[in-house]
Amino acid sequence: MESVSIDFEKAGGLVPAIIQDHRSGEVLMLGFMNSVSLEETQRSGEVVFFSRSRNKLWKKGESSGHVLKVREVRLDCDADAILVRVEAVGPGVCHEGYRSCFFRTLGSDGKVKITEERAFTPEAVYGPQQEKKA
Amino acid sequence: MESVSIDFEKAGGLVPAIIQDHRSGEVLMLGFMNSVSLEETQRSGEVVFFSRSRNKLWKKGESSGHVLKVREVRLDCDADAILVRVEAVGPGVCHEGYRSCFFRTLGSDGKVKITEERAFTPEAVYGPQQEKKA
Repeated sequence: MESVSIDFEKAGGLVPAIIQDHRSGEVLMLGFMNSVSLEETQRSGEVVFFSRSRNKLWKKGESSGHVLKVREVRLDCDADAILVRVEAVGPGVCHEGYRSCFFRTLGSDGKVKITEERAFTPEAVYGPQQEKKA
Repeated sequence: MESVSIDFEKAGGLVPAIIQDHRSGEVLMLGFMNSVSLEETQRSGEVVFFSRSRNKLWKKGESSGHVLKVREVRLDCDADAILVRVEAVGPGVCHEGYRSCFFRTLGSDGKVKITEERAFTPEAVYGPQQEKKA
């Protein structure tokens, strides 16, 4: 056991947090956390990001109900990136209606192609005003 | 098919790039890319990051030989994060001798514990001067 200081200062107070399905291993999304959002994530057992666009804490699923239940938090060697293994509540995490936010493949020609199936209808979950990612 | 501009400007010219083993689904590391390193990654078929600490392009495996062969590049919904699914050459990607850089688990008490087995001896691969992560 050791105590480690997470290097929040390297990128202006924020570290990237990868969200991975703890069963399938699928990478669901990437958000950012500051120290308060990480504390709140650990305390509540559900993922809380820091939204860069809204400049405030952002509880994932606050409007959709698609919360991310924390199963394990991992830290990388340089203590400047976090991997959160989760149980994702609901059909998908992406505000565009997909299970994962990484639903597009980038070809070597620079073209992007949707390579996943839609899992739900965003408007039915979020209404006309969609929950934005950070 | 659509053309998408990756939002490199959101975080000062860089986007986080998650590296995932394309077979096991294990998340191996997280680095950053600028537009040139992404182009170079696509062109060469092997992952090239932008090192924030050294402020230059950093071909993963340049000193260790542990290159990351690109199998698929995914883009998230906001086009500000990249997921690279790779075949990782060698016993592990971490300069500390682990298969994944995420070899430590963060407890809810803030304590960190090593929860993976070492895969190789760093000194034997990198010599006394270890390859640094970005």
